[in-house]
Amino acid sequence: MRVLAIGAHPDDVEILCGGTLAKYAARGDHVTIMVATNGNVGSKALSKDEIAAVRKREAEASAELIGADFIWLNYDDEFLFHDRESRMTFINAIRKANPDVMFVHSGNDYHPDHRICSEIAVDCRIPVTVPLIKTAYPHMEKIPHVFLMDTIGGVGFEPEAYVNITNTFDMKARMLECHDSQNSWLKYMYGTGVVENAAKTSAFRGAAPGFKYAEGFRSLPLYPIPGGLHLLP
Amino acid sequence: MRVLAIGAHPDDVEILCGGTLAKYAARGDHVTIMVATNGNVGSKALSKDEIAAVRKREAEASAELIGADFIWLNYDDEFLFHDRESRMTFINAIRKANPDVMFVHSGNDYHPDHRICSEIAVDCRIPVTVPLIKTAYPHMEKIPHVFLMDTIGGVGFEPEAYVNITNTFDMKARMLECHDSQNSWLKYMYGTGVVENAAKTSAFRGAAPGFKYAEGFRSLPLYPIPGGLHLLP
Amino acid sequence: MRVLAIGAHPDDVEILCGGTLAKYAARGDHVTIMVATNGNVGSKALSKDEIAAVRKREAEASAELIGADFIWLNYDDEFLFHDRESRMTFINAIRKANPDVMFVHSGNDYHPDHRICSEIAVDCRIPVTVPLIKTAYPHMEKIPHVFLMDTIGGVGFEPEAYVNITNTFDMKARMLECHDSQNSWLKYMYGTGVVENAAKTSAFRGAAPGFKYAEGFRSLPLYPIPGGLHLLP
Amino acid sequence: MRVLAIGAHPDDVEILCGGTLAKYAARGDHVTIMVATNGNVGSKALSKDEIAAVRKREAEASAELIGADFIWLNYDDEFLFHDRESRMTFINAIRKANPDVMFVHSGNDYHPDHRICSEIAVDCRIPVTVPLIKTAYPHMEKIPHVFLMDTIGGVGFEPEAYVNITNTFDMKARMLECHDSQNSWLKYMYGTGVVENAAKTSAFRGAAPGFKYAEGFRSLPLYPIPGGLHLLP
Amino acid sequence: MRVLAIGAHPDDVEILCGGTLAKYAARGDHVTIMVATNGNVGSKALSKDEIAAVRKREAEASAELIGADFIWLNYDDEFLFHDRESRMTFINAIRKANPDVMFVHSGNDYHPDHRICSEIAVDCRIPVTVPLIKTAYPHMEKIPHVFLMDTIGGVGFEPEAYVNITNTFDMKARMLECHDSQNSWLKYMYGTGVVENAAKTSAFRGAAPGFKYAEGFRSLPLYPIPGGLHLLP
Amino acid sequence: MRVLAIGAHPDDVEILCGGTLAKYAARGDHVTIMVATNGNVGSKALSKDEIAAVRKREAEASAELIGADFIWLNYDDEFLFHDRESRMTFINAIRKANPDVMFVHSGNDYHPDHRICSEIAVDCRIPVTVPLIKTAYPHMEKIPHVFLMDTIGGVGFEPEAYVNITNTFDMKARMLECHDSQNSWLKYMYGTGVVENAAKTSAFRGAAPGFKYAEGFRSLPLYPIPGGLHLLP
Repeated sequence: MRVLAIGAHPDDVEILCGGTLAKYAARGDHVTIMVATNGNVGSKALSKDEIAAVRKREAEASAELIGADFIWLNYDDEFLFHDRESRMTFINAIRKANPDVMFVHSGNDYHPDHRICSEIAVDCRIPVTVPLIKTAYPHMEKIPHVFLMDTIGGVGFEPEAYVNITNTFDMKARMLECHDSQNSWLKYMYGTGVVENAAKTSAFRGAAPGFKYAEGFRSLPLYPIPGGLHLLP
Repeated sequence: MRVLAIGAHPDDVEILCGGTLAKYAARGDHVTIMVATNGNVGSKALSKDEIAAVRKREAEASAELIGADFIWLNYDDEFLFHDRESRMTFINAIRKANPDVMFVHSGNDYHPDHRICSEIAVDCRIPVTVPLIKTAYPHMEKIPHVFLMDTIGGVGFEPEAYVNITNTFDMKARMLECHDSQNSWLKYMYGTGVVENAAKTSAFRGAAPGFKYAEGFRSLPLYPIPGGLHLLP
Repeated sequence: MRVLAIGAHPDDVEILCGGTLAKYAARGDHVTIMVATNGNVGSKALSKDEIAAVRKREAEASAELIGADFIWLNYDDEFLFHDRESRMTFINAIRKANPDVMFVHSGNDYHPDHRICSEIAVDCRIPVTVPLIKTAYPHMEKIPHVFLMDTIGGVGFEPEAYVNITNTFDMKARMLECHDSQNSWLKYMYGTGVVENAAKTSAFRGAAPGFKYAEGFRSLPLYPIPGGLHLLP
Repeated sequence: MRVLAIGAHPDDVEILCGGTLAKYAARGDHVTIMVATNGNVGSKALSKDEIAAVRKREAEASAELIGADFIWLNYDDEFLFHDRESRMTFINAIRKANPDVMFVHSGNDYHPDHRICSEIAVDCRIPVTVPLIKTAYPHMEKIPHVFLMDTIGGVGFEPEAYVNITNTFDMKARMLECHDSQNSWLKYMYGTGVVENAAKTSAFRGAAPGFKYAEGFRSLPLYPIPGGLHLLP
Repeated sequence: MRVLAIGAHPDDVEILCGGTLAKYAARGDHVTIMVATNGNVGSKALSKDEIAAVRKREAEASAELIGADFIWLNYDDEFLFHDRESRMTFINAIRKANPDVMFVHSGNDYHPDHRICSEIAVDCRIPVTVPLIKTAYPHMEKIPHVFLMDTIGGVGFEPEAYVNITNTFDMKARMLECHDSQNSWLKYMYGTGVVENAAKTSAFRGAAPGFKYAEGFRSLPLYPIPGGLHLLP
Repeated sequence: MRVLAIGAHPDDVEILCGGTLAKYAARGDHVTIMVATNGNVGSKALSKDEIAAVRKREAEASAELIGADFIWLNYDDEFLFHDRESRMTFINAIRKANPDVMFVHSGNDYHPDHRICSEIAVDCRIPVTVPLIKTAYPHMEKIPHVFLMDTIGGVGFEPEAYVNITNTFDMKARMLECHDSQNSWLKYMYGTGVVENAAKTSAFRGAAPGFKYAEGFRSLPLYPIPGGLHLLP
C-alpha cells in the first residue's frame, strides 16, 4: 500500500500521524511525507531563507528515519492560498506520491495554513485521476481514500478510529526531535515542547481505546468513499 | 469472534444488519440474534398470542438460515420500557450470548421500542462484566464493542463504515422472507414490502463506497471504545 | 414563479433536482438551468474543446425537454474558483434568470466545483439586488429564496423537505440520458450509470415520505429567509 | 384538516404555537388542545387542588377563544413520567383528537415535563394506528405528521419553517391572558409576563422571514415522515 | 457562593471536577459533594454491603480534604433509575445543599448511572424552587446555574470553558487517592489507575488554554440560564 | 484591557456588539472599531464614492460616542476577498489595535462580506504575533482571545455567554442612529430600521439569562484558546 501524509508545515505530519506513519513503514508500506510550506517565519534569530533551509533539512531527516519519500512544496509559511496555481502544484505532487490512502489536516484545524492545506488536498482527490488534467506526473488510476488527522490540541475533533502507536511512539518522538528549530520556536510561542505536547495528546487519545498512546482519525465524509478505517495500520 | 445483534422486533436485525450477520456467519464467526419484543400487535387478523407465536417461528427460521443462536425476550410489542427488570433481563441475555461485538439500534431510530431497546442494550454493556451483578449466566470478561445499526429509512443516520453485502444480499432477502406475516403487515401499514425496502436502502448505502449493496454502521461514541470498525466483516 | 437551478457541471442539476424542475415546468413555472463549468475534462477520447462542445449540446437538449432556459458559463471543469470575476459573472447570470427561488449545491458536496459553485451562488443572493452593482442585466427587486440540493451519494445530507417526483421520474431519466458522454465517463470513473444512480437515490429519498421517488432539499439557513419549503412543487 | 397541539402545562401550547393554532382555526381546520399536567404547583397562595382547578378553567377559556376542543390529562405538575400507564393515556387521548398533524414540545426544551411530554407524544405516533392496541377510542387510520414546537426562550432551537402570525398575534395574546394565574406566577419566578415574553420571541422569530411576528417549527426527523412543512398554515 | 457537585459514583466528582472544587474551597466558597450510588458492585472480593461501606468512608475522607459537605444517597450501583422516588430524593438533597452553581454529569457520559444521574439532577433544577413541592428541606429561592462536567475519557465533550487547576492538581490527586478500593477495581477493569487517568485528561484539557492542568466545562443549554461561565473559579 | 471589534460594513459592530463595546468603554478599557468595507453600494441616490464618504463619517461619529479608536480599511462593499493582500492589510491593522480580545463575525453569518471578513480576521490571529511577518506596525506579543459575534437575525447562532447590555442599550441605539444612511437603506431592502431590529434581537437574547437586553457570544473553538468568556464585560 502507498501512503501519503500532507502537512502544512514541517513537523505537522509528525505531530498528528507520526506514530501511524511509522507503523505503516515498519510493516513495509510505502510512505511519502509532503510539506506545503517552508516554515520560513519560524525563527526569532534567522532570516526567512535561513530558517527555511534549516527546516527543510530537519524535515528530511525526520522522513528518513522511517524511510519515507519526501516532497517539499516550498510555499511561504503563513501564506498558503488556494488558487489555480496551488491546486495544480498539489495535483502534481499527489500524483508523484500516487497514494492509496492520504492523510490531510482537518478542515477546522487551528492554523490558516492547516485549513487551507486541507482544502486544497481534499479538492485534489478527484482531479488527480482525470486524464485531461495534464501535469508532469501521469494521472492516478484511483481516487485515494482520505483520512482527516486530529487537530492541534484536539480541539473540535472526535476520532472515529484510533491507531495504537504505543510501539511506535518512540519513533514518533525521534521524528519530532529532528525538528530542533521548531521545538525552540514552539517553546517561545506557546511554552511547551513538541514531544511533551505529543505525549499529552497521544496519551489522551489512548484513553478511550485503552492504549498507552494512540492517534485518532476520521474518514473524509465525501462521496465517493473508496476505502475505510480498516486501511489504518 | 462472537457477534450479538439485538433487535426490538422480529425482523429488525435482518433489515438493518442481515447481510453483515450472514457475512460473519459465512466466515465462521458465532452469531446470536436476540429479539426484545414478540411482535404481538403486528396483525389485523390474529389475536395477540397467535401473532406472537407466528412471529417467533418466523424469526427462528430466519436465524436458522445462517446458523445463528436465537434469544427471544418476549416483551409486549410497542411496550418495551427501561426499568430494573428489563435491565436485568438484558444483562442476563447478553451474558448468554457473550459477544465480542454487539449490534444495537441507533438511539434516534423511528420507533419507541427501537430507541428504548437501544438504550437498555447500551446501558448493559458495562454491567454485563461486573461480577457482583448476579444473573443466571456468569459475568463476561470484557466489555463488548458496540456498533450502532442504521435507522429505518436511513433518516438521521450517517454511516462511519460500510459493509459490502453484495454477496450476502440474497441471504438477507431469504431471511427477510421468513418474516411472512410482517411483510403483509408492513404493506398494510406503509405500502411496501420488506425486501423491496431493504434493496432500496442497501443500494443507496452502497453508493458512497461503490458497492452494489451495503449496510452502514457507526461505533458507539462512549468510553471505553474497546474495539473499532475493523471488527466489521 | 421563476425558478433557477445552478449546477457545477452539465448534468448535476438533472441528477439532484431534475424531477423537481420537471414538476415546476409541468405546472407552468418558468425554469432556468445554469451550468457553471463546461465539463471539458470529462472524456478519455476527446480533446478539451471537443468534449466541452459535446457537453454543451447535451445540456441544452436536456433543458429543452422541459422548456427551460439555459445559461452556460463555460468555466473550466475542475477549476472553478471564487474571485471577483466569477462573482460578477454569477451576479449577472442570476439577474438574467431573475428567480424567485434558486437551487444550489450543498456546501459540503463531494466535488470542489460543487462546493465552490455553491459558495459563489450563495454569496450572490444579496448582491443581485443591489442597484449600485452594475452588470449587463438590471438588479433584481427581491432576494430569492435558496434551496440546497442533495449531495452526490446523499453523503452528509439530511433533507428538510421531500418533493414527490414519482410522476416526473421518467422525465428526469430522459433528461439524464441526454448526457450521453457523461454517462460513459461516470461508468469509467465509478462503475455505474447516471440513471441507475438517480433511481437508487430517488428511491431511497422516497422511503421516509412514502413516495416511490423523491428528491430532498433544505432551505439555506441564512438571514433573510424570504420564502420557505412551501415554494417547492 | 385536524390539528392537535400537546402541551406539558396549561399555557405552553399558547406560548409556543398559539398564533399558528389561531390561524388553523380561522381558516376552518379542526383544532384540539391537549394539556398533560394540571399545573398544580403553580401558585404561592392556593393549595394544589385549588390551583389545578383554576388553571383548568383558564386553559378551557383559552381553547374556547378559537373554538378548539380541549383535553385535560390531569397529571401532577412537575411529575409527568413515561411509563405504560402514561403511554396508554396519551394513545387514547390522541385517538380522541384523531389528528392529521400534531404539535409537540422539542425534546430539548427547558422543563422536564416538556421533555417527557414530548417523548411520550412522539412515542405514541405509531401505536395510535395499531388495531391490536385497544383503548376507549378506536385506532387511527394514519400516522400523523409531527411538528416540533420552539423551546422556551428559543434556546437550542433552529426553525426549519416560520408561520407568519402577525394577523393572529392579538388572538395569541388574548389566549395567553386567559392564563391569569400563570402570568403572576411567571412574574414571581422569572420576572416577566407571558405576553411580553411571547411578543419578544415572536418578534425575533419574525426577523429572518421578515414578518412582524412569527412562530418557528421543525418536522420530527423520524421515519416515516407522512407530511411536510406545507401542512403549516 | 454555594457549590454542589453531583456524581453518580464515589470518585466521579473528584475525577471530573476535583481540581475545580478544591479551588472553590480554597477561596472560601461552600462546597457540597453528593454521591448518588453507593458503589456496591465495585469489588471482586467484598460483598455488596462491605464494599458500599468502604466506599462511603473513602468518599467522606475525600470530601473532608477540602472541607466539603457530603451527601450520600445510597442508590444501588449500576441501578439508578429516574422515577418519582428518585426525583423527590434528589430535590430534597439539592435543597439541603442549596447551591448557586451545580455541577452534573454530561448527558452523553459513558455509564448509564452517569447519564441517568445527569438527567435527574437537571430535571430537579426548576422543581427545587417550587414551594408547593414539599420535602424535608425548604424550597430554594433561585434556580441554580448548572455546569456540565467532562465525560470519562473526554469522549464526545468539547469544553466551553477551562478552569486552570495547576495549583490544585495535587489536592485532586490526594482526593482521588482516598478512593483506594476504586483504584484497584479500575486497574482490574481497565488497566490504569485513577490518578494516572486524571493526569492524562487534565494535561490534555490544559493544552488549548495553555495550562499545565485544566478541567473543562459547559453551561447547561436550557432556559433559563441564570448564571454563566464567570461563575467558575 | 484592549478590545478590537472587526465589522464587515459600517454599523455591523454596533448591531452585533455595540452594547458590549459601550460597557468595555464605560469601565475604562481601550476599544477599537475596525470596518473592512466602505459600504459604497448602500444607497439608491448617491454615487459609490459619495455614499462611502457618508458612511465613513457616520461610523466615525458612532465610534466617537464611546471614545473608540477607528480603523477604516476601505474595501469595496460586497467585494471583500481573502487573498495575500487583504491578509497583510488585516495583520497590520490588527497590530495597530494590538488587542487582548477581538470580536469577529461568525463564519456562518448571512452576508459574504461577513463570512469572508470573519475568515480573514480569524486567519490573522496567529500571524500578528510572528516577528518575521513585517508590516508597518510591530508584531504583537500575544495571540488575542477571539469572540464570535451573533449572526444577523440570530440565524444559526447559539450563544455560549450573554452580556447584560440593559444599561448600555441606549448608547447602542445612539451609535446605531449615527448610521443614518444605512437606516434608510435597510428599510428599503428589508423593511425595518436598525434600532428596531437591535431591540428585537437584544430583547430575545436577554430571555434566557433574564436580562432586559443582552448580546450573545461564543469563543472561537480553535487552539490555542488564550482567554475565556470571563473576558466579557
